[in-house]
Amino acid sequence: METEFSRFKDMREDKDMTQAQIAEILGIQQTVYSRYERGFQYIPIKHLIKLADFYNVSTDYLLGRTNNQKINR
Amino acid sequence: METEFSRFKDMREDKDMTQAQIAEILGIQQTVYSRYERGFQYIPIKHLIKLADFYNVSTDYLLGRTNNQKINR
Repeated sequence: METEFSRFKDMREDKDMTQAQIAEILGIQQTVYSRYERGFQYIPIKHLIKLADFYNVSTDYLLGRTNNQKINR
Repeated sequence: METEFSRFKDMREDKDMTQAQIAEILGIQQTVYSRYERGFQYIPIKHLIKLADFYNVSTDYLLGRTNNQKINR
């Protein structure tokens, strides 16, 4: 089982988006995306990047490595 | 096929480390790690985080999202 990454859920809810909407952005089924959020399925790095791009945050923030959302350019 | 992430190789070489040494840190076979570097196998997020911790860089840097190695705290 993959680690649970609660920030995926937090960011989605901050944007008032449904799991189905995020799943559509990633080109996957809602059931698969739901498994990502609950830590029941590995999140491929390409989807991590796509979500960080969409939310305009650093991957480090999404992964809980920092509390600063901004990417260091 | 996963995207090729050349910075995994670059960082390892900067540290003068072999694939076998990095593989040992991750607890995987060298052949598997080699496949990560060449983009022939998905890199699990837990290994991405472990390598970013080891190299003391941001995951965004490792993934090529920024040229700044430092994580934004």
